[in-house]
Amino acid sequence: MFKYNKHGPFSYFYDMKGTLWLIPNTLNDGDPLKSLPAVVVEQVKLLRYFIVENEKSARRFLVRTGMKSLLEEIEFGLLDEHSRVDDLEPLILPVLKGCDAGLLSESGCPGVADPGADLIRLAHASGIRVRPLIGPSSIIMSVMAGGLNGQRFVFHGYLPAKPQDRIRKIKEIENRSKQNQETQVFIEAPYRNRQMLNDLINNLSPDTLLSVSVDLTTEQELIKTARVWEWTKFDIDINKRLAVFSILKT
Amino acid sequence: MFKYNKHGPFSYFYDMKGTLWLIPNTLNDGDPLKSLPAVVVEQVKLLRYFIVENEKSARRFLVRTGMKSLLEEIEFGLLDEHSRVDDLEPLILPVLKGCDAGLLSESGCPGVADPGADLIRLAHASGIRVRPLIGPSSIIMSVMAGGLNGQRFVFHGYLPAKPQDRIRKIKEIENRSKQNQETQVFIEAPYRNRQMLNDLINNLSPDTLLSVSVDLTTEQELIKTARVWEWTKFDIDINKRLAVFSILKT
Repeated sequence: MFKYNKHGPFSYFYDMKGTLWLIPNTLNDGDPLKSLPAVVVEQVKLLRYFIVENEKSARRFLVRTGMKSLLEEIEFGLLDEHSRVDDLEPLILPVLKGCDAGLLSESGCPGVADPGADLIRLAHASGIRVRPLIGPSSIIMSVMAGGLNGQRFVFHGYLPAKPQDRIRKIKEIENRSKQNQETQVFIEAPYRNRQMLNDLINNLSPDTLLSVSVDLTTEQELIKTARVWEWTKFDIDINKRLAVFSILKT
Repeated sequence: MFKYNKHGPFSYFYDMKGTLWLIPNTLNDGDPLKSLPAVVVEQVKLLRYFIVENEKSARRFLVRTGMKSLLEEIEFGLLDEHSRVDDLEPLILPVLKGCDAGLLSESGCPGVADPGADLIRLAHASGIRVRPLIGPSSIIMSVMAGGLNGQRFVFHGYLPAKPQDRIRKIKEIENRSKQNQETQVFIEAPYRNRQMLNDLINNLSPDTLLSVSVDLTTEQELIKTARVWEWTKFDIDINKRLAVFSILKT
């Protein structure tokens, strides 16, 4: 059970709700001060309640943030892909009672391509202030760096895993990119990235633009934009590496 | 003409291209150290050539970054909505010759909802390394904070300015949000924001979710997500304030 008394003896008596802070995680397991503004790290250090996708990796993030000595004081709530609507209210209750919370993703921005959005919507519906903090998003960084259409783009999340469904989806979004002149952005589980790249090269039109952003913000960062016919000449292995894919048929 | 000799006497002799750094600008005219990781600010300080939307505001950004005494050494190239394809090559030439460049937007991330993408694509085609830096994006922050669907979203840029076209577009993207369960994100010129909010409230279905993120990262930050019928009860003036709008019909 949540130990409210840790968060000040008066939190019962004030009709004052806490704030839900949205904390971007690093993309690279590195020093948070290299990926987040110093004021964001300072804000994180003030929090003692975190809603996280995975407690173990959240602890590691907090240790890297310099909060090792505070870990015993910290409460964690779990919000992952198995969480159901009924799980959200207990997670938000401490915030209703006056305690600030930090929502932390496994990587990048919470509420984007992770299970956080429903909790954020509940916070709005409960009159809780939601404050997004500045940090890395592999999606926006790949849109920036890809040089496809940055005036209009769609993020699809994961494409279907089954080969035939995936190939159908690839062709569908290629058509959509041509029709709407929208960059189509999507991701894949890292261990399927080689297959995904092959499927793209083999099924897109030769003149479609394909951009792949790999291992963003790390030493191994690789960002490549070229027509599909040019991709057949590259010798790049992206398997088991974090990648964001974008296409645009001009 | 660009003074190449400023960038080292050996840049002619090495067959080594420069890097195109993509620099996010603050959303709030404030201290860049509050919006960017310190290592990003350090990287910016190393650059002496910037490709910018507006030289005056770029100079202000560099002054805020602590580069006032260096301004005389700095070259600026202009890339704005009036730039044409022919203008891109001279901008990228110094980078081909070995000089690093920083691409800077008026606000937020370059290459996203600004004229930078074509230059970035040319950099890729010219074999120049493109490196995105971490900083604020009002688009991704509004997706995070809105709590609509963060697994799938579309950014449309500006909707049409003419009232009738705009209302038609609003209805079209509402349908699309229902059909694809995609959050629809868009922006408007600040002086038309009051009208935009009225058009949304008057033309969307009462149960459509509407999220508005105003003055992100400033003291006046306001983020509200509610059903359209609830919005009719709010008394919020967003005119002449920077806003990002999102809708989702569930």
